[in-house]
Amino acid sequence: MNERVDRLRAALDEPLLVSDPTNVRYLSGLASTNAALLVEPDRVRLFADFRYAERGRAVEGAEFVEAKRDLFQTLSEVLSGRIGFEASSLTYERYARLHAGGIDLVGRYGLVEELRMVKDEDELAAIRRAAEITNNAFERFADEGGVVGKTERELAWRMEQLLHDADCDSVAFPVAVAAGPNTAKPHTVPGERPVGKGEAVFVDAGCTVAGYCSDCTRTFATGPLPDELKRAYDVCLDAQLAGLAAVRAGASGSGVDAAARDRIEAAGFGDAFGHGLGHGVGLLVHEDPRLAQESRHTLAPGNVVTVEPGIYLPGLGGMRIEDLVVVREDEPEVLTHFTKELVMLD
Amino acid sequence: MNERVDRLRAALDEPLLVSDPTNVRYLSGLASTNAALLVEPDRVRLFADFRYAERGRAVEGAEFVEAKRDLFQTLSEVLSGRIGFEASSLTYERYARLHAGGIDLVGRYGLVEELRMVKDEDELAAIRRAAEITNNAFERFADEGGVVGKTERELAWRMEQLLHDADCDSVAFPVAVAAGPNTAKPHTVPGERPVGKGEAVFVDAGCTVAGYCSDCTRTFATGPLPDELKRAYDVCLDAQLAGLAAVRAGASGSGVDAAARDRIEAAGFGDAFGHGLGHGVGLLVHEDPRLAQESRHTLAPGNVVTVEPGIYLPGLGGMRIEDLVVVREDEPEVLTHFTKELVMLD
Repeated sequence: MNERVDRLRAALDEPLLVSDPTNVRYLSGLASTNAALLVEPDRVRLFADFRYAERGRAVEGAEFVEAKRDLFQTLSEVLSGRIGFEASSLTYERYARLHAGGIDLVGRYGLVEELRMVKDEDELAAIRRAAEITNNAFERFADEGGVVGKTERELAWRMEQLLHDADCDSVAFPVAVAAGPNTAKPHTVPGERPVGKGEAVFVDAGCTVAGYCSDCTRTFATGPLPDELKRAYDVCLDAQLAGLAAVRAGASGSGVDAAARDRIEAAGFGDAFGHGLGHGVGLLVHEDPRLAQESRHTLAPGNVVTVEPGIYLPGLGGMRIEDLVVVREDEPEVLTHFTKELVMLD
Repeated sequence: MNERVDRLRAALDEPLLVSDPTNVRYLSGLASTNAALLVEPDRVRLFADFRYAERGRAVEGAEFVEAKRDLFQTLSEVLSGRIGFEASSLTYERYARLHAGGIDLVGRYGLVEELRMVKDEDELAAIRRAAEITNNAFERFADEGGVVGKTERELAWRMEQLLHDADCDSVAFPVAVAAGPNTAKPHTVPGERPVGKGEAVFVDAGCTVAGYCSDCTRTFATGPLPDELKRAYDVCLDAQLAGLAAVRAGASGSGVDAAARDRIEAAGFGDAFGHGLGHGVGLLVHEDPRLAQESRHTLAPGNVVTVEPGIYLPGLGGMRIEDLVVVREDEPEVLTHFTKELVMLD
């Protein structure tokens, strides 16, 4: 079928039913909410309902099987014997239906996700383009200024417009904008509070090109910040650069996390960095490998990861700086070029 | 905790672990990607990681338990005894982890989804507001005109802007615009083909307010259509009105589907209507009850459903007209007021 399927086959002990939609898309190119692939040593079957028949038949190297709208009804009728399934995405209900159909099911974990971690040149080209569009949107956002008095929600929408104007396929996730006290929380929904003067404002944004995502965060200031927040920014940037410097093939996900975390802890902000340093980015905006204390991944050339330490100080505010990078044998290729100096916006 | 939890309890044979994010939100008000509720006869526990701690502690009537980022690790350690789980959304992996933790698991189906089908007044108010915003966006879209020469993608984005300008929280799904030959497929992604003269153009759009969705489709024309397409529009509208007339408490989902489908079949277009007549709308844009040939639902007052027959003629084009309605004892309350006359756009 293609080189991705060949690599998957080499990792299989029995035929694998690929039912995770992102994995189906990765292997076949078909984006569908109701499709599955059965990968066997000598054949690949693609099951999907009539809505995807035209595109499904056009997939090279796979036999298309038009399934019922109830895809798992068809699968339970057609499949037999010993078959691996994707245990992290298949629901218990679907498992039980296949099991009741007499299939000898073997739970498998992360087989396609493992392949997806290493991007090929086509995938890297799409991610680079998505990152470039995001960079341009950040430049225009900063050039426009005028954020004081606007709500987080207005600013998030403006950023979405800038991403769209630069011709991405879509946003990779709803743009997050937090300002002032709301920056003290790593995850917030943009609200109706107008941005004041002398506040931190972070913007977390990304878009997709040909299915592949970008992801970038920058923290701005609307005038001089309180000393403690200014110091937090400097520590966050120092940690971010230390994390970046640790990213290379062979480094462990936990080791890269520690390289940044150590700086934050040494500066006395250890308790204020409550999430992992970064995550893989590809067809999903959050995927493997992980850069985190509990990560068991080892980085390899072609991985694409974020490096995004944050310092969140309840009642005062927070900071996050996030780059998207391609892992190389030596220093990583940084795709997010917007400045990491603390930019003042009016 | 609240009336929703009380109704759920009445349907339980054993404590239920609610892990589907939409169901957790429905019962607790907490929107989270990493939370679960354990509903027992005399207590409700809400499990979520530190990111949701502040909001989680604010949920009335539930004891908040701060879980690890690996939520199911915490659940497998804390839970014991006989516990129901949501088999249609829990992954096999999570099931297996809880099972390995010694929990006596019982697969349960649709318990919270059943409650979600009947909307209360707060839910209806949000859906009405989302529908009103969508109506206004359709009005402005039609008033602006100027669609000939624009791409489907540009038009979809314009519709998203109009929805946003009317102050919704977000779009309920990416706006779908198809024109000319692309209207022959019920599901397409807006492309780069400019709209020509004398074509059908359908716009399928909705937005969210307070988490609740709206959904509306109208088909326009950019000049006189071929006779067969014009006839298809008239048949589609006739079927849509017949479907609407059949919507009332006590009607079966399959019966309402048949009321519309019979008209389309009688006109000779039976093979061209390849999807169900409609679906429930609430926190999700597609939920129960279903209006379809295979539906086993019976409509009840407070259900909110779409009524959306379509006629898709390969090589020629297609038509779809979709209303969003509230089920009542007698005739439904129609929320989508934009005209169903075939509107000509330049």
